[in-house]
Amino acid sequence: MRRPVNIASRHELEIVMTRRYRMKLRAERKADTRGRIVAAAAHLHRTLGPDRTTISDIARLAGVERPTVLRHFPDRLSLAMACLLPGLEQDPPPDPAAWKLVADPAARLSRALTEIYPHYRRNRVLLSSIADETNDEFAPIRQAGRPRRDDAHRVLAEGWSVPESGHPRLLLAIGHAFSFWAWVSLADLGLADDEAAALMVDMVRGVVRGLQPRR
Amino acid sequence: MRRPVNIASRHELEIVMTRRYRMKLRAERKADTRGRIVAAAAHLHRTLGPDRTTISDIARLAGVERPTVLRHFPDRLSLAMACLLPGLEQDPPPDPAAWKLVADPAARLSRALTEIYPHYRRNRVLLSSIADETNDEFAPIRQAGRPRRDDAHRVLAEGWSVPESGHPRLLLAIGHAFSFWAWVSLADLGLADDEAAALMVDMVRGVVRGLQPRR
Repeated sequence: MRRPVNIASRHELEIVMTRRYRMKLRAERKADTRGRIVAAAAHLHRTLGPDRTTISDIARLAGVERPTVLRHFPDRLSLAMACLLPGLEQDPPPDPAAWKLVADPAARLSRALTEIYPHYRRNRVLLSSIADETNDEFAPIRQAGRPRRDDAHRVLAEGWSVPESGHPRLLLAIGHAFSFWAWVSLADLGLADDEAAALMVDMVRGVVRGLQPRR
Repeated sequence: MRRPVNIASRHELEIVMTRRYRMKLRAERKADTRGRIVAAAAHLHRTLGPDRTTISDIARLAGVERPTVLRHFPDRLSLAMACLLPGLEQDPPPDPAAWKLVADPAARLSRALTEIYPHYRRNRVLLSSIADETNDEFAPIRQAGRPRRDDAHRVLAEGWSVPESGHPRLLLAIGHAFSFWAWVSLADLGLADDEAAALMVDMVRGVVRGLQPRR
Protein backbone atom coordinates (compact mmCIF):
# COMPACT_ATOMS: atom_id res chain seq x y z
CA MET A 1 0.00 0.00 0.00
CA ARG A 2 1.24 3.50 -0.78
CA ARG A 3 2.04 5.83 2.10
CA PRO A 4 0.05 9.16 1.94
CA VAL A 5 2.29 12.03 0.93
CA ASN A 6 1.85 15.63 2.04
CA ILE A 7 2.33 17.73 -1.02
CA ALA A 8 3.21 21.37 -0.33
CA SER A 9 3.66 22.52 -3.88
CA ARG A 10 3.41 21.52 -7.50
CA HIS A 11 7.21 21.40 -7.56
CA GLU A 12 7.36 18.98 -4.57
CA LEU A 13 4.73 16.78 -6.21
CA GLU A 14 6.83 16.52 -9.32
CA ILE A 15 9.84 15.53 -7.28
CA VAL A 16 7.90 12.77 -5.50
CA MET A 17 6.36 11.54 -8.76
CA THR A 18 9.72 11.47 -10.45
CA ARG A 19 11.29 9.55 -7.57
CA ARG A 20 8.45 7.01 -7.60
CA TYR A 21 8.74 6.62 -11.35
CA ARG A 22 12.46 6.15 -11.08
CA MET A 23 12.03 3.50 -8.37
CA LYS A 24 9.46 1.70 -10.51
CA LEU A 25 11.77 1.81 -13.51
CA ARG A 26 14.68 0.51 -11.45
CA ALA A 27 12.57 -2.38 -10.08
CA GLU A 28 11.46 -3.26 -13.59
CA ARG A 29 14.97 -3.10 -14.91
CA LYS A 30 16.12 -5.29 -12.02
CA ALA A 31 13.40 -7.86 -12.73
CA ASP A 32 14.32 -7.64 -16.39
CA THR A 33 18.04 -8.21 -15.64
CA ARG A 34 17.17 -11.20 -13.48
CA GLY A 35 14.97 -12.54 -16.26
CA ARG A 36 17.72 -12.11 -18.83
CA ILE A 37 20.21 -13.90 -16.57
CA VAL A 38 17.78 -16.78 -15.96
CA ALA A 39 17.02 -17.08 -19.69
CA ALA A 40 20.72 -17.08 -20.57
CA ALA A 41 21.60 -19.60 -17.85
CA ALA A 42 18.64 -21.85 -18.75
CA HIS A 43 19.75 -21.86 -22.38
CA LEU A 44 23.36 -22.73 -21.49
CA HIS A 45 22.33 -25.33 -18.90
CA ARG A 46 20.24 -27.08 -21.53
CA THR A 47 22.84 -26.99 -24.26
CA LEU A 48 26.22 -27.11 -22.49
CA GLY A 49 25.10 -28.48 -19.12
CA PRO A 50 25.44 -26.74 -15.73
CA ASP A 51 28.90 -28.27 -15.14
CA ARG A 52 30.33 -26.74 -18.29
CA THR A 53 28.54 -23.37 -18.00
CA THR A 54 30.63 -20.60 -16.43
CA ILE A 55 29.35 -17.41 -14.78
CA SER A 56 31.24 -15.48 -17.47
CA ASP A 57 29.36 -17.38 -20.24
CA ILE A 58 26.04 -16.47 -18.62
CA ALA A 59 27.03 -12.80 -18.14
CA ARG A 60 28.13 -12.53 -21.76
CA LEU A 61 24.92 -14.05 -23.12
CA ALA A 62 22.71 -11.97 -20.81
CA GLY A 63 24.61 -8.78 -21.68
CA VAL A 64 25.53 -7.99 -18.08
CA GLU A 65 28.71 -7.95 -16.01
CA ARG A 66 29.91 -10.99 -14.05
CA PRO A 67 29.30 -9.32 -10.63
CA THR A 68 25.69 -8.66 -11.68
CA VAL A 69 25.12 -12.40 -12.16
CA LEU A 70 26.70 -13.13 -8.78
CA ARG A 71 24.59 -10.40 -7.09
CA HIS A 72 21.39 -12.08 -8.31
CA PHE A 73 22.60 -15.67 -7.83
CA PRO A 74 25.33 -16.15 -5.23
CA ASP A 75 25.80 -19.88 -6.02
CA ARG A 76 25.18 -22.37 -8.80
CA LEU A 77 22.37 -24.13 -6.93
CA SER A 78 20.24 -20.96 -6.67
CA LEU A 79 20.85 -20.34 -10.36
CA ALA A 80 20.00 -23.93 -11.31
CA MET A 81 16.84 -23.77 -9.20
CA ALA A 82 15.75 -20.53 -10.92
CA CYS A 83 16.35 -22.13 -14.33
CA LEU A 84 14.56 -25.33 -13.50
CA LEU A 85 11.09 -23.87 -12.97
CA PRO A 86 10.71 -22.18 -16.38
CA GLY A 87 12.25 -25.31 -17.93
CA LEU A 88 9.66 -27.55 -16.28
CA GLU A 89 6.84 -25.19 -17.29
CA GLN A 90 8.04 -25.24 -20.87
CA ASP A 91 8.48 -29.04 -20.99
CA PRO A 92 6.69 -30.64 -18.03
CA PRO A 93 7.44 -34.31 -17.27
CA PRO A 94 4.51 -36.66 -17.99
CA ASP A 95 1.88 -37.08 -15.27
CA PRO A 96 1.63 -40.48 -13.48
CA ALA A 97 -2.07 -39.79 -12.78
CA ALA A 98 -2.93 -40.63 -16.40
CA TRP A 99 -1.11 -43.98 -16.17
CA LYS A 100 -3.38 -45.14 -13.34
CA LEU A 101 -6.20 -45.48 -15.86
CA VAL A 102 -4.37 -48.26 -17.77
CA ALA A 103 -5.39 -51.53 -16.11
CA ASP A 104 -2.86 -53.94 -17.65
CA PRO A 105 0.46 -53.42 -15.84
CA ALA A 106 2.69 -54.16 -18.87
CA ALA A 107 0.64 -51.77 -21.06
CA ARG A 108 0.77 -49.16 -18.28
CA LEU A 109 4.58 -49.47 -17.98
CA SER A 110 4.92 -49.31 -21.75
CA ARG A 111 2.84 -46.12 -21.88
CA ALA A 112 4.81 -44.51 -19.02
CA LEU A 113 8.17 -45.33 -20.62
CA THR A 114 7.15 -44.12 -24.08
CA GLU A 115 6.18 -40.82 -22.39
CA ILE A 116 9.15 -40.35 -20.05
CA TYR A 117 11.94 -41.45 -22.42
CA PRO A 118 11.34 -38.63 -24.95
CA HIS A 119 11.27 -36.22 -22.00
CA TYR A 120 14.69 -37.55 -20.97
CA ARG A 121 15.94 -37.19 -24.55
CA ARG A 122 14.82 -33.55 -24.82
CA ASN A 123 16.40 -32.70 -21.45
CA ARG A 124 19.41 -34.99 -21.56
CA VAL A 125 22.21 -32.46 -21.04
CA LEU A 126 20.48 -30.78 -18.10
CA LEU A 127 19.45 -34.07 -16.47
CA SER A 128 22.95 -35.54 -16.88
CA SER A 129 24.16 -32.99 -14.34
CA ILE A 130 21.15 -32.88 -12.07
CA ALA A 131 20.64 -36.66 -11.85
CA ASP A 132 24.34 -37.31 -11.13
CA GLU A 133 24.45 -38.51 -7.52
CA THR A 134 28.20 -37.79 -7.31
CA ASN A 135 27.33 -34.09 -7.65
CA ASP A 136 26.39 -32.90 -4.15
CA GLU A 137 25.68 -29.39 -5.37
CA PHE A 138 22.38 -30.43 -6.94
CA ALA A 139 21.29 -32.84 -4.19
CA PRO A 140 18.44 -30.49 -3.09
CA ILE A 141 16.98 -30.58 -6.61
CA ARG A 142 17.07 -34.39 -6.68
CA GLN A 143 15.56 -34.44 -3.20
CA ALA A 144 12.71 -32.21 -4.37
CA GLY A 145 11.89 -34.52 -7.27
CA ARG A 146 11.91 -37.74 -5.21
CA PRO A 147 8.23 -37.84 -4.07
CA ARG A 148 7.05 -37.51 -7.67
CA ARG A 149 9.41 -40.26 -8.78
CA ASP A 150 8.43 -42.59 -5.93
CA ASP A 151 4.76 -41.98 -6.78
CA ALA A 152 5.43 -42.97 -10.40
CA HIS A 153 7.19 -46.17 -9.24
CA ARG A 154 4.22 -47.10 -7.02
CA VAL A 155 1.69 -46.49 -9.80
CA LEU A 156 3.72 -48.66 -12.21
CA ALA A 157 4.26 -51.50 -9.70
CA GLU A 158 0.53 -52.15 -9.21
CA GLY A 159 -1.31 -55.13 -10.63
CA TRP A 160 1.61 -57.42 -11.55
CA SER A 161 1.02 -60.97 -10.40
CA VAL A 162 3.87 -61.34 -7.96
CA PRO A 163 3.68 -62.55 -4.36
CA GLU A 164 3.87 -59.92 -1.62
CA SER A 165 7.42 -61.01 -0.78
CA GLY A 166 8.56 -60.19 -4.32
CA HIS A 167 7.28 -56.63 -4.26
CA PRO A 168 10.58 -54.92 -3.28
CA ARG A 169 12.36 -56.63 -6.19
CA LEU A 170 9.54 -55.67 -8.59
CA LEU A 171 9.86 -52.05 -7.42
CA LEU A 172 13.60 -52.14 -8.17
CA ALA A 173 12.97 -53.45 -11.69
CA ILE A 174 10.34 -50.73 -12.26
CA GLY A 175 12.65 -48.12 -10.75
CA HIS A 176 15.42 -49.17 -13.11
CA ALA A 177 13.17 -49.14 -16.19
CA PHE A 178 11.93 -45.65 -15.24
CA SER A 179 15.36 -44.18 -14.48
CA PHE A 180 17.12 -41.53 -16.52
CA TRP A 181 20.38 -43.51 -16.48
CA ALA A 182 18.77 -46.69 -17.80
CA TRP A 183 17.42 -44.59 -20.68
CA VAL A 184 20.92 -43.13 -21.28
CA SER A 185 22.32 -46.65 -21.55
CA LEU A 186 19.67 -47.69 -24.09
CA ALA A 187 19.87 -44.45 -26.09
CA ASP A 188 23.67 -44.82 -26.36
CA LEU A 189 23.19 -48.35 -27.69
CA GLY A 190 21.37 -46.66 -30.57
CA LEU A 191 17.79 -47.49 -29.57
CA ALA A 192 14.88 -45.19 -30.42
CA ASP A 193 12.67 -44.36 -27.45
CA ASP A 194 9.85 -46.76 -28.36
CA GLU A 195 12.35 -49.60 -28.96
CA ALA A 196 13.99 -48.84 -25.61
CA ALA A 197 10.60 -48.89 -23.88
CA ALA A 198 9.69 -52.24 -25.47
CA LEU A 199 13.02 -53.79 -24.42
CA MET A 200 12.56 -52.53 -20.86
CA VAL A 201 9.03 -53.91 -20.60
CA ASP A 202 10.44 -57.31 -21.61
CA MET A 203 13.18 -56.94 -19.00
CA VAL A 204 10.67 -56.16 -16.25
CA ARG A 205 8.60 -59.15 -17.42
CA GLY A 206 11.71 -61.29 -16.89
CA VAL A 207 12.00 -60.14 -13.28
CA VAL A 208 8.27 -60.65 -12.67
CA ARG A 209 8.50 -64.19 -14.02
CA GLY A 210 11.46 -64.90 -11.71
CA LEU A 211 9.27 -63.86 -8.76
CA GLN A 212 6.35 -66.14 -9.62
CA PRO A 213 6.09 -69.48 -7.80
CA ARG A 214 7.59 -72.30 -9.93
CA ARG A 215 4.99 -74.58 -11.48
CA MET B 1 74.33 -41.92 -29.20
CA ARG B 2 76.78 -39.40 -27.75
CA ARG B 3 78.70 -37.21 -30.15
CA PRO B 4 82.50 -37.41 -29.66
CA VAL B 5 83.79 -34.26 -28.04
CA ASN B 6 87.26 -32.82 -28.60
CA ILE B 7 88.54 -31.78 -25.28
CA ALA B 8 91.32 -29.16 -25.33
CA SER B 9 91.79 -28.74 -21.63
CA ARG B 10 90.64 -29.89 -18.23
CA HIS B 11 88.70 -26.65 -17.95
CA GLU B 12 86.84 -27.31 -21.21
CA LEU B 13 86.07 -30.85 -20.08
CA GLU B 14 84.51 -29.54 -16.93
CA ILE B 15 82.34 -27.11 -18.91
CA VAL B 16 81.10 -29.91 -21.19
CA MET B 17 80.47 -32.28 -18.27
CA THR B 18 78.63 -29.61 -16.36
CA ARG B 19 76.47 -28.79 -19.38
CA ARG B 20 75.65 -32.49 -19.90
CA TYR B 21 74.87 -32.92 -16.25
CA ARG B 22 72.65 -29.85 -16.31
CA MET B 23 70.80 -31.13 -19.39
CA LYS B 24 70.27 -34.51 -17.72
CA LEU B 25 69.04 -32.83 -14.56
CA ARG B 26 66.67 -30.64 -16.58
CA ALA B 27 65.32 -33.66 -18.48
CA GLU B 28 64.79 -35.51 -15.21
CA ARG B 29 63.12 -32.52 -13.63
CA LYS B 30 60.93 -32.15 -16.71
CA ALA B 31 59.89 -35.83 -16.54
CA ASP B 32 59.36 -35.41 -12.83
CA THR B 33 57.20 -32.30 -13.36
CA ARG B 34 55.15 -34.13 -15.94
CA GLY B 35 54.77 -37.06 -13.56
CA ARG B 36 53.66 -34.78 -10.74
CA ILE B 37 51.11 -33.09 -13.02
CA VAL B 38 49.74 -36.46 -14.19
CA ALA B 39 49.53 -37.76 -10.61
CA ALA B 40 47.74 -34.60 -9.46
CA ALA B 41 45.34 -34.62 -12.40
CA ALA B 42 44.66 -38.35 -12.05
CA HIS B 43 43.83 -37.86 -8.37
CA LEU B 44 41.47 -34.95 -9.08
CA HIS B 45 39.86 -36.71 -12.06
CA ARG B 46 39.08 -39.69 -9.87
CA THR B 47 37.71 -37.70 -6.94
CA LEU B 48 36.19 -34.54 -8.46
CA GLY B 49 35.77 -35.69 -12.05
CA PRO B 50 37.43 -34.15 -15.12
CA ASP B 51 34.52 -31.71 -15.64
CA ARG B 52 34.96 -30.17 -12.23
CA THR B 53 38.79 -30.20 -12.22
CA THR B 54 40.39 -26.91 -13.24
CA ILE B 55 43.92 -26.39 -14.53
CA SER B 56 44.53 -24.19 -11.47
CA ASP B 57 43.51 -27.06 -9.14
CA ILE B 58 45.99 -29.36 -10.89
CA ALA B 59 48.78 -26.77 -10.79
CA ARG B 60 48.23 -26.16 -7.07
CA LEU B 61 48.27 -29.86 -6.20
CA ALA B 62 51.33 -30.56 -8.38
CA GLY B 63 53.17 -27.54 -6.96
CA VAL B 64 53.73 -25.92 -10.36
CA GLU B 65 52.45 -22.83 -12.13
CA ARG B 66 49.35 -22.90 -14.35
CA PRO B 67 51.39 -22.22 -17.56
CA THR B 68 53.58 -25.24 -16.74
CA VAL B 69 50.52 -27.50 -16.78
CA LEU B 70 49.42 -25.99 -20.09
CA ARG B 71 52.92 -26.39 -21.58
CA HIS B 72 52.84 -30.14 -20.84
CA PHE B 73 49.16 -30.63 -21.69
CA PRO B 74 47.69 -28.08 -24.10
CA ASP B 75 44.11 -29.46 -23.79
CA ARG B 76 41.98 -31.51 -21.42
CA LEU B 77 41.89 -34.51 -23.73
CA SER B 78 45.68 -34.94 -23.75
CA LEU B 79 45.66 -34.61 -19.96
CA ALA B 80 42.81 -37.12 -19.56
CA MET B 81 44.60 -39.56 -21.88
CA ALA B 82 47.81 -39.27 -19.84
CA CYS B 83 45.85 -39.92 -16.63
CA LEU B 84 43.91 -42.84 -18.03
CA LEU B 85 46.83 -45.17 -18.61
CA PRO B 86 48.23 -45.19 -15.05
CA GLY B 87 44.61 -45.44 -13.84
CA LEU B 88 43.99 -48.53 -15.97
CA GLU B 89 47.29 -50.09 -14.89
CA GLN B 90 46.38 -49.53 -11.26
CA ASP B 91 42.82 -50.87 -11.62
CA PRO B 92 42.46 -52.77 -14.91
CA PRO B 93 38.94 -53.66 -16.08
CA PRO B 94 38.16 -57.40 -15.93
CA ASP B 95 39.22 -59.56 -18.88
CA PRO B 96 36.47 -61.06 -21.12
CA ALA B 97 38.83 -63.95 -22.01
CA ALA B 98 38.19 -65.57 -18.62
CA TRP B 99 34.41 -65.43 -19.13
CA LYS B 100 34.64 -67.57 -22.26
CA LEU B 101 35.44 -70.56 -20.06
CA VAL B 102 31.99 -70.44 -18.39
CA ALA B 103 29.69 -72.58 -20.56
CA ASP B 104 26.27 -71.62 -19.15
CA PRO B 105 25.37 -68.19 -20.60
CA ALA B 106 23.46 -66.96 -17.52
CA ALA B 107 26.30 -67.99 -15.20
CA ARG B 108 28.78 -66.36 -17.59
CA LEU B 109 26.80 -63.09 -17.63
CA SER B 110 26.47 -63.20 -13.85
CA ARG B 111 30.23 -63.63 -13.47
CA ALA B 112 30.98 -60.79 -15.90
CA LEU B 113 28.59 -58.39 -14.17
CA THR B 114 29.86 -59.20 -10.67
CA GLU B 115 33.35 -58.39 -11.99
CA ILE B 116 32.60 -55.24 -13.99
CA TYR B 117 30.14 -53.57 -11.57
CA PRO B 118 32.70 -53.17 -8.75
CA HIS B 119 35.11 -51.76 -11.35
CA TYR B 120 32.43 -49.19 -12.27
CA ARG B 121 31.90 -48.40 -8.57
CA ARG B 122 35.61 -47.80 -7.92
CA ASN B 123 35.90 -45.57 -11.01
CA ARG B 124 32.46 -43.95 -10.96
CA VAL B 125 33.47 -40.28 -10.90
CA LEU B 126 35.98 -40.67 -13.73
CA LEU B 127 33.68 -42.83 -15.86
CA SER B 128 30.73 -40.44 -15.37
CA SER B 129 32.64 -37.90 -17.44
CA ILE B 130 34.30 -40.21 -19.91
CA ALA B 131 31.21 -42.33 -20.69
CA ASP B 132 29.00 -39.24 -21.16
CA GLU B 133 28.19 -39.20 -24.89
CA THR B 134 27.12 -35.53 -24.71
CA ASN B 135 30.76 -34.70 -23.94
CA ASP B 136 32.52 -34.53 -27.32
CA GLU B 137 35.86 -33.74 -25.70
CA PHE B 138 36.33 -37.34 -24.55
CA ALA B 139 34.92 -39.02 -27.68
CA PRO B 140 38.39 -40.33 -28.68
CA ILE B 141 38.71 -42.14 -25.34
CA ARG B 142 35.29 -43.76 -25.77
CA GLN B 143 36.21 -44.69 -29.33
CA ALA B 144 39.40 -46.35 -28.12
CA GLY B 145 37.49 -48.49 -25.62
CA ARG B 146 34.83 -49.65 -28.08
CA PRO B 147 36.52 -52.79 -29.52
CA ARG B 148 37.08 -54.19 -26.02
CA ARG B 149 33.46 -53.46 -25.10
CA ASP B 150 32.08 -55.01 -28.31
CA ASP B 151 34.22 -58.09 -27.68
CA ALA B 152 32.75 -58.43 -24.18
CA HIS B 153 29.21 -58.15 -25.61
CA ARG B 154 29.95 -60.90 -28.16
CA VAL B 155 31.41 -63.24 -25.54
CA LEU B 156 28.37 -62.73 -23.28
CA ALA B 157 25.81 -63.16 -26.09
CA GLU B 158 26.98 -66.70 -26.97
CA GLY B 159 25.07 -69.84 -26.12
CA TRP B 160 21.66 -68.40 -25.25
CA SER B 161 18.86 -70.37 -26.93
CA VAL B 162 17.43 -67.65 -29.15
CA PRO B 163 16.73 -67.92 -32.89
CA GLU B 164 19.21 -66.19 -35.24
CA SER B 165 16.64 -63.43 -35.90
CA GLY B 166 16.58 -62.55 -32.22
CA HIS B 167 20.34 -62.09 -31.91
CA PRO B 168 20.41 -58.28 -32.38
CA ARG B 169 17.85 -57.85 -29.59
CA LEU B 170 19.79 -60.21 -27.32
CA LEU B 171 22.94 -58.17 -27.97
CA LEU B 172 21.09 -55.00 -26.94
CA ALA B 173 19.94 -56.59 -23.68
CA ILE B 174 23.49 -57.77 -22.98
CA GLY B 175 24.86 -54.35 -23.93
CA HIS B 176 22.47 -52.72 -21.50
CA ALA B 177 23.28 -55.09 -18.65
CA PHE B 178 27.01 -54.50 -19.22
CA SER B 179 26.80 -50.70 -19.51
CA PHE B 180 28.17 -48.24 -17.00
CA TRP B 181 24.92 -46.24 -17.03
CA ALA B 182 22.73 -49.26 -16.26
CA TRP B 183 24.97 -49.90 -13.26
CA VAL B 184 24.62 -46.23 -12.19
CA SER B 185 20.83 -46.59 -12.28
CA LEU B 186 20.92 -49.74 -10.12
CA ALA B 187 23.53 -48.37 -7.70
CA ASP B 188 21.44 -45.23 -7.17
CA LEU B 189 18.42 -47.41 -6.37
CA GLY B 190 20.53 -48.63 -3.45
CA LEU B 191 21.53 -52.04 -4.83
CA ALA B 192 24.82 -53.69 -3.92
CA ASP B 193 26.81 -54.89 -6.92
CA ASP B 194 25.91 -58.58 -6.57
CA GLU B 195 22.21 -57.71 -6.17
CA ALA B 196 22.41 -55.47 -9.24
CA ALA B 197 24.06 -58.26 -11.22
CA ALA B 198 21.39 -60.78 -10.18
CA LEU B 199 18.57 -58.38 -11.16
CA MET B 200 20.19 -57.76 -14.52
CA VAL B 201 20.61 -61.47 -15.26
CA ASP B 202 16.86 -61.86 -14.60
CA MET B 203 16.16 -58.93 -16.92
CA VAL B 204 18.21 -60.45 -19.73
CA ARG B 205 16.41 -63.78 -19.15
CA GLY B 206 13.14 -61.90 -19.71
CA VAL B 207 14.33 -60.65 -23.08
CA VAL B 208 15.64 -64.11 -24.05
CA ARG B 209 12.29 -65.65 -23.16
CA GLY B 210 10.48 -63.04 -25.30
CA LEU B 211 12.65 -64.15 -28.24
CA GLN B 212 11.95 -67.85 -27.93
CA PRO B 213 9.26 -69.36 -30.19
CA ARG B 214 5.88 -69.56 -28.33
CA ARG B 215 4.93 -73.05 -27.28
